[in-house]
Amino acid sequence: MPTYKAPLRDIKFLMNELLDAPAELAKIPYYTTNETADADLMSQVLDEAARFVESELVPLNAIGDKEGCVRHDNGDVTTPTGFKAAYKKYREAGWTALDADPTYGGQGMPHLISNVLVEMMNSANVAWSMYPGLSHGAYSALHAVGSDALKDLYLPKIVSGEWTGTMCLTEPHAGTDLGMIRTKATDNGDGSYAISGTKIFISAGEHDMADNIVHLVLARLEGSPEGTKGISLFLVPKFIPTPDGKVGERNGVVCGSLEHKMGIHGNATAVLNFDQAKGWLVGEVNKGMNHMFIMMNAARLGTGLQGLGLGEVAYQNALAYAKDRTQMRHEPRVNPAEQADPIIVHPDVRRMLLTGKAYTEAGRAMAMWLALSIDQEHHHPDEAKRKEAADLVALLTPIAKAFMTDNGFNIAVQSQQVFGGHGYIQEWGMEQFVRDARIGQIYEGTNGIQALDLLGRKVLMDGGKKLQKLAGTLQEFVEENESDEHIGEYATQLGKAAQQLGSLTMVIGQKAMGEGGADEVNAAAVDYLRFFGHVVYGYLWARMAKIAHEQIEAGNDRDGFYTAKVQTAKFYFAKLFPEIKSLATTIKAGNETLAVDDRAVFGWEGALVHA
Amino acid sequence: MPTYKAPLRDIKFLMNELLDAPAELAKIPYYTTNETADADLMSQVLDEAARFVESELVPLNAIGDKEGCVRHDNGDVTTPTGFKAAYKKYREAGWTALDADPTYGGQGMPHLISNVLVEMMNSANVAWSMYPGLSHGAYSALHAVGSDALKDLYLPKIVSGEWTGTMCLTEPHAGTDLGMIRTKATDNGDGSYAISGTKIFISAGEHDMADNIVHLVLARLEGSPEGTKGISLFLVPKFIPTPDGKVGERNGVVCGSLEHKMGIHGNATAVLNFDQAKGWLVGEVNKGMNHMFIMMNAARLGTGLQGLGLGEVAYQNALAYAKDRTQMRHEPRVNPAEQADPIIVHPDVRRMLLTGKAYTEAGRAMAMWLALSIDQEHHHPDEAKRKEAADLVALLTPIAKAFMTDNGFNIAVQSQQVFGGHGYIQEWGMEQFVRDARIGQIYEGTNGIQALDLLGRKVLMDGGKKLQKLAGTLQEFVEENESDEHIGEYATQLGKAAQQLGSLTMVIGQKAMGEGGADEVNAAAVDYLRFFGHVVYGYLWARMAKIAHEQIEAGNDRDGFYTAKVQTAKFYFAKLFPEIKSLATTIKAGNETLAVDDRAVFGWEGALVHA
Repeated sequence: MPTYKAPLRDIKFLMNELLDAPAELAKIPYYTTNETADADLMSQVLDEAARFVESELVPLNAIGDKEGCVRHDNGDVTTPTGFKAAYKKYREAGWTALDADPTYGGQGMPHLISNVLVEMMNSANVAWSMYPGLSHGAYSALHAVGSDALKDLYLPKIVSGEWTGTMCLTEPHAGTDLGMIRTKATDNGDGSYAISGTKIFISAGEHDMADNIVHLVLARLEGSPEGTKGISLFLVPKFIPTPDGKVGERNGVVCGSLEHKMGIHGNATAVLNFDQAKGWLVGEVNKGMNHMFIMMNAARLGTGLQGLGLGEVAYQNALAYAKDRTQMRHEPRVNPAEQADPIIVHPDVRRMLLTGKAYTEAGRAMAMWLALSIDQEHHHPDEAKRKEAADLVALLTPIAKAFMTDNGFNIAVQSQQVFGGHGYIQEWGMEQFVRDARIGQIYEGTNGIQALDLLGRKVLMDGGKKLQKLAGTLQEFVEENESDEHIGEYATQLGKAAQQLGSLTMVIGQKAMGEGGADEVNAAAVDYLRFFGHVVYGYLWARMAKIAHEQIEAGNDRDGFYTAKVQTAKFYFAKLFPEIKSLATTIKAGNETLAVDDRAVFGWEGALVHA
Repeated sequence: MPTYKAPLRDIKFLMNELLDAPAELAKIPYYTTNETADADLMSQVLDEAARFVESELVPLNAIGDKEGCVRHDNGDVTTPTGFKAAYKKYREAGWTALDADPTYGGQGMPHLISNVLVEMMNSANVAWSMYPGLSHGAYSALHAVGSDALKDLYLPKIVSGEWTGTMCLTEPHAGTDLGMIRTKATDNGDGSYAISGTKIFISAGEHDMADNIVHLVLARLEGSPEGTKGISLFLVPKFIPTPDGKVGERNGVVCGSLEHKMGIHGNATAVLNFDQAKGWLVGEVNKGMNHMFIMMNAARLGTGLQGLGLGEVAYQNALAYAKDRTQMRHEPRVNPAEQADPIIVHPDVRRMLLTGKAYTEAGRAMAMWLALSIDQEHHHPDEAKRKEAADLVALLTPIAKAFMTDNGFNIAVQSQQVFGGHGYIQEWGMEQFVRDARIGQIYEGTNGIQALDLLGRKVLMDGGKKLQKLAGTLQEFVEENESDEHIGEYATQLGKAAQQLGSLTMVIGQKAMGEGGADEVNAAAVDYLRFFGHVVYGYLWARMAKIAHEQIEAGNDRDGFYTAKVQTAKFYFAKLFPEIKSLATTIKAGNETLAVDDRAVFGWEGALVHA
């Protein structure tokens, strides 16, 4: 059975040394007023979070996978053994309120801290963590655009965790393409709407863990235009609350079935049938897509954290196995008295382990940087700083989602490989990590869609301004450090890669404005995102290595933590970063070799027969 | 539910045009005498194989996954619904005898043909196909080294499929490291031995499909030396045959349990307990490892064919879905009257599809080339030609196993991605392909072990002779074609890559002979195998493109088959082959960044604390 210890040492290094977060947060009155960003307090909260996650959530992970959720004939759903009790403890300990607005009973902690909690929860038990995760997304959207009346009625219950929330977007014929949704809303004339339609793939869509479930539903109001411009967001509770916030009458939304999935079995992925269900408009009519993106952006970082958390736990277990399992002999021998040596001595096993460590630690650094930027975006007193943070968040979110889930899946697969045949056996738990990690690359916008969001929307559509801002930060770092005796070589490599990213962006942009059109963006996007991800990770590894060298020179490395950082950085630049060489070539190759003859190559008589 | 059509057009192209197989086989008296290598006959057999596989095996694939195998209290095992009946049809149609020795009832067809049958079977139903697959491995070893008495008694039954076979190697503490096995054999003094011990991960280890199961078991004869030099191979039947080949008394081998696995649920992966089971020596005492490798080499190509077959079927289904599923709009529109266009129009979807097509078709070419070489190795009248073929088979087998299963898994994952959220749902069947494909990278020697076999044993240990022979073939092709108007560019790229492979081999070899030792081989092996794989695939794509251009120029491309070859080759060189650029860098980086401080980086107080 897999184990998990929260990587608190690394988390605190990133918080205090890489990001200097206590000092950054001290510039934000929201946190100083609420007294929630004190370094010691944040550290204590993280310790407490680790204890909760390790003791309550880890033991339920395999159970959840094995039992799954059960739907009863009346549409009720029972979650796996222990899920409900753990949620009660989670809620009562105040974790649902952690970073929520104190106006509604929240604790007002920085997003930086809840981000770390979510990473830990994902390492421990992704399927379970999605119940509070979806709730948090619903909280964010409602808090941002809901009317005061809706917020006063619903938010205290969601913040306390008594009620949970969902995001209802997908329909059978409309996944990526939400403009095609058919769920209808009719004005009841009393401030409420009647919602009818079918939503699929609704995570945490029905369960027994909370008294009520608050669905945020995309639907088309009668008379609204076709496409994305005619979509509004509605709040549809499972039970209609009484005005004083008690659970009232059952609403017309029922779980029609649960999906049988490859993984995340402990989470109820529901088909929800809305039949004249009573709903209330959230935000403005026909602005539903914009409002939903408030949830989606948070959900995208949250999905990235699934990749991060699963990578971390898979790595931890592969590392433990590699120390324990003896097989074959190494020269020089480690166990000369035994038949075989621990497999961790074999360089190829070390390569797999270091791949996990290097991607995970860089991913954590990026996620925490992003989370701190979200705190600045939301609460910094300086508007220019808010804008700057918002731009960085917009730029890095698709990378956080796609690069972290792709790497997390690959780490899970490689960590399973370390186990040999035992990795394929369910009892060892490694194959569950692989199955659970796979969904992160698919949902909340496939990783292909993330890549288009990055290259098309975030980079090209604003003329490269957000990219240039980040490139400026990198360039400054490179210039300061390219002669550094320790990290000069990394700074030089990074500088070249950042320049290449800029020139590749230009090449794609020019092709896209020419005959190639949007196809050139689509053709390059996935490789471009991976290239960009390496530039960001390279920057963070260089910065981490710099701090580590300083600490080693100051004699502060008794536990070897900084030595590990230095050596992992070296590994990253030698073995993982060079992927950009192939990517540069494939990006430049563009759409030309993809524009094949549809009939000949694909047996497809489409209209698009490329010559 | 997934569908599958055997790719007969491509198979026949490879057989007749790329490999010129009928002419090559006509040089071998074994086939001309048996009249089994006639072009028309081979073609008809392949058509028949496709019909059988498509109609009988495809429909059982999802059932097998869902039901799995059931072990009863007495150790008997029931296979999924339909498995037994399909096996009866398979056996009665003569497929178990296809390439077997006519002396024992076989049909004596070329391995080339059975190789294609196995690919098709793996596309249709990997779990089912492993029952006859393991049998075939047992047949090969027994045929090669068994005594006449054992062969006369057992081979006719195995060839007819009435009895099946297994390979019993792994023990709980001994997977990769077979020298550590503890299963014991004691001489009974009557020509038989008493075998005791526990074997795990025994595919097709117990089932209800055949009257008897013939286990080939690695065990240590009392008094034999420790390690691999003290291991012998024994034949241990489930039921001891009477002298006239009827099923007799039950032997002391019992299925103790079945593993719960990530995939291949329809195959019974058994723990087998041998308790004073009666067995007979196969081959020579203490030569068990050598004898077992006869099976292992066949099994390794067979495992590679699992990657190939699963990649093919996953690709086929992703292609069908991409034509059918409409989502988002393309400029210019394909369905101007509809809301959305088929997703196959999006370049990133085409990239995923073409990746599947390009790797699969090159893999098929390599596998068939290898299979034809096995026919030559076994039966060619010219000893030099046999040796040349044997060397090629030895060199390419680890690549066939590892490169095809890695690519197959990646294709399954990408093909699942084409389905979006539906890919994660069991009913669509794509996630089963991913789970079933995962084991190919692990068993029959992990892909890391294959890489060591290639670089350490097959390339470096003979001073690069096998590599040089292949490099000569490539060089000749390059020189002949580098000025070709169509494929000159590919030939040039291939020539450079082949030279680089040679120089990388030298670099690793020198490091390994110096201070780096075997660790340098271990550190580079996995990336080296991937580089080598691209060189082989590049060679085959260039050759296929050359033939295709000739056919197009001769006006023979009415169905577009050759256009597809030309365009897929172009895609391969533009988008997949460039992976060698990164690999060259990471290979050169060697072991240096893997030799990290064990205590600091891995928290391990091993003896090997690298500075």
